[in-house]
Amino acid sequence: MPKFQPPRGTRDFMPEDMSRRQYVLDTFRRVFESFGFRPMDTPAFESWELLSKKGGGGEGIKDEIYYFKDKSDRELGLRFDLTVPLARVAAGNPQLQLPFKRYQISKVWRYDRPQAGRMREFVQADSDIVGTAGMEADAECIAVAVEALRALGFRKLEVRLNNRKILNALVESVNIPGKKAPEVFRILDKTGKAPRSEIIGELKRSGIDAGRVTKLMKLIDVSGAPEKTLPRIGRMLAGIGTAEDGTRGLEQIVTIAKSYGIDKCIKIDLSLVRGLEYYTGPIFEVSAKAKRQVGSVAGGGRYDNLIEMYGGKPTPATGISFGIERIFEVMCAENMFAEVKPKTSVFVVSVNDDAAVRGESIVIAQKLRSSGVDAETDLMGRDLRKQLDYANRRQIPFVLIVGPDEMKTGRFTMKEMKTGREKKAGLENLVKKLKDETGITS
Amino acid sequence: MPKFQPPRGTRDFMPEDMSRRQYVLDTFRRVFESFGFRPMDTPAFESWELLSKKGGGGEGIKDEIYYFKDKSDRELGLRFDLTVPLARVAAGNPQLQLPFKRYQISKVWRYDRPQAGRMREFVQADSDIVGTAGMEADAECIAVAVEALRALGFRKLEVRLNNRKILNALVESVNIPGKKAPEVFRILDKTGKAPRSEIIGELKRSGIDAGRVTKLMKLIDVSGAPEKTLPRIGRMLAGIGTAEDGTRGLEQIVTIAKSYGIDKCIKIDLSLVRGLEYYTGPIFEVSAKAKRQVGSVAGGGRYDNLIEMYGGKPTPATGISFGIERIFEVMCAENMFAEVKPKTSVFVVSVNDDAAVRGESIVIAQKLRSSGVDAETDLMGRDLRKQLDYANRRQIPFVLIVGPDEMKTGRFTMKEMKTGREKKAGLENLVKKLKDETGITS
Repeated sequence: MPKFQPPRGTRDFMPEDMSRRQYVLDTFRRVFESFGFRPMDTPAFESWELLSKKGGGGEGIKDEIYYFKDKSDRELGLRFDLTVPLARVAAGNPQLQLPFKRYQISKVWRYDRPQAGRMREFVQADSDIVGTAGMEADAECIAVAVEALRALGFRKLEVRLNNRKILNALVESVNIPGKKAPEVFRILDKTGKAPRSEIIGELKRSGIDAGRVTKLMKLIDVSGAPEKTLPRIGRMLAGIGTAEDGTRGLEQIVTIAKSYGIDKCIKIDLSLVRGLEYYTGPIFEVSAKAKRQVGSVAGGGRYDNLIEMYGGKPTPATGISFGIERIFEVMCAENMFAEVKPKTSVFVVSVNDDAAVRGESIVIAQKLRSSGVDAETDLMGRDLRKQLDYANRRQIPFVLIVGPDEMKTGRFTMKEMKTGREKKAGLENLVKKLKDETGITS
Repeated sequence: MPKFQPPRGTRDFMPEDMSRRQYVLDTFRRVFESFGFRPMDTPAFESWELLSKKGGGGEGIKDEIYYFKDKSDRELGLRFDLTVPLARVAAGNPQLQLPFKRYQISKVWRYDRPQAGRMREFVQADSDIVGTAGMEADAECIAVAVEALRALGFRKLEVRLNNRKILNALVESVNIPGKKAPEVFRILDKTGKAPRSEIIGELKRSGIDAGRVTKLMKLIDVSGAPEKTLPRIGRMLAGIGTAEDGTRGLEQIVTIAKSYGIDKCIKIDLSLVRGLEYYTGPIFEVSAKAKRQVGSVAGGGRYDNLIEMYGGKPTPATGISFGIERIFEVMCAENMFAEVKPKTSVFVVSVNDDAAVRGESIVIAQKLRSSGVDAETDLMGRDLRKQLDYANRRQIPFVLIVGPDEMKTGRFTMKEMKTGREKKAGLENLVKKLKDETGITS
């Protein structure tokens, strides 16, 4: 048992895992940037006042933050998401050029009870669009999600889509008072996670009579392809203003999604609530099938009041957040990392311990590096055989052998470790072959 | 005055700055990987017991950590460097394949009084080699530093090199007891930062008589090119075992540095101490000249006892740490970011508000993205002129114009914003031109 371990709820990522994680994060970065999102960074901790503000994360969030004081007794906490810092930045920078399209890929921390697949430290990747109320922005966030997950190899993506305006209309249609809506949403958010009977029970305990609970449950059961489902919702909630506004918004998103070529992924689902209080418009959640059903890997929605709540001008905004840990876990389990190559291409072997040979190996390695080929040399004073063993264990695909003869002739033997095939040639030729084999284009 | 701001000692990085920071971090990553270093990640916080362990950071470190408790009253703190977590991982994983060459680029936090250029949250980039006592490893760390800084555009690099073994011998040679050495080193570490008279005063106050202080100060003044300086040190400290061992180590590093082509950067400097107590062998610090003298931007050394101190087997290790904030600050001030291109290559303009035109713009943008060209479309319902204004303000280099005529003919006008030059052609041709112009090779 090691003397020191990572704190409870956290873990280390050793190089093999971390290389894979970087591949995932790089893919998100590339897709975000392909849509014109640009990176932003904010501090790991924020003022406690900001973090604990009602609406930032709903009730109970206070118990879920790592809280501490600085030496001037300022109350601070580790951030629990990337939306609150964005709202702070948007509120504090009224001169921002709009639309402000930013992405942020960073760690966040929550004080949950640690459980399988749920850590206290985890990475989120968020892309948000600040400054437009247009449904083009919501549609773009959904498109980003589909593109990013496809780029990672996920197939059979499903985007469940709802609108808080429709949910508000639902609640109104069964005569539940508007101020009770947040509580009702919090209960309905358990759909799919808790048994239906439990949800019904909770709704009743919250003071809604059985008749209205039945009506409500029937309404949120409505789901299906947009072409059929949106007109049906229109009929169901005819005459309630927010419902019309809400369905029109979803219709616009679906129309735009056709141009993105992603409309077939979209399913309207009135049981989708998403827990956070701050949503004001369309909300969405993306699930994927790898070999087996994966569940939700991304979610988001529109939050037109949040920036004002943090002291800014009224500023509409929408965004999506990717659960990197879940995505990573699934990709590991489903062996979706075939493409990630070992990082080092060549091990330059010194045939003996002569300083001139060792020196020449370093010279060769430096030449390889300057040609864009990653290379290692021995640092352990190992003999020829042990150097080959090391290259093998590290799964370095090629070794290049340097000895006195090679130094005289300028011709080196390069061996492909997997096949055992050898090629003897001048360095320039070998570099060319290596670049072909490892797909380096620079 | 915004209602909420980043906590004292921290800052936000808005997209323009953050893109530049990513360029810096990507460069480090590329150079680290070209030498076969692989990424690792550890939690932002560690157990307080680990962080506050003497030797991890010398005296006073306890006052410089953000400390907090979790809900089970576990004592935790935000990490103040990346070496302590590495030592924990190495101690806890005795099965690690050696050499274990890892890099980590992450935030660390220190409770310093905030001052110009010194924040409480900052990024470090570390590369370390665990498992070999050979000077090849120290030389490689120095080579990584030179390569990385050159890749960023720094010139006139100077690597100041010393060895704790020589410093121990120096102290011994003037008859200062060995147990006093850490205190003496802490005072000598101020060389170059504090006036000489202050250092002399402190040494005297620590109980060393004036004669020995004079001798000591004369010894640490020795510096210069390795060929002359190392033999001179050999003569000065002849007969003191650790001195011989120390100079031999530096000679080896200088010899290996010749193969790396970086020996001209190296200067022996006996006044280099580096504050941390845990160093046991070679220590080094890299400074650069941009247009003006920059000062130290990287530093490191050998710490052969640290992993054992954290409960591991005796395991030699060496490494180097880059001060990303300082590097970034200098690169901004010296305008060293000419190469960082704006991220979005094309803005696809819709000539009017017709849904078909807007839809076609999205279709075109998606085609550009799938060809590897970053593209944006309007999300604000702006008219033609305002879309062009936006593209201009964002410094997006090209616009591609979509209207009813273009949709009919399949030929689109692309305009280079800087020159005003236009080209009308089919999409495939335009993509080709864009890829040529923006240097996209994929």
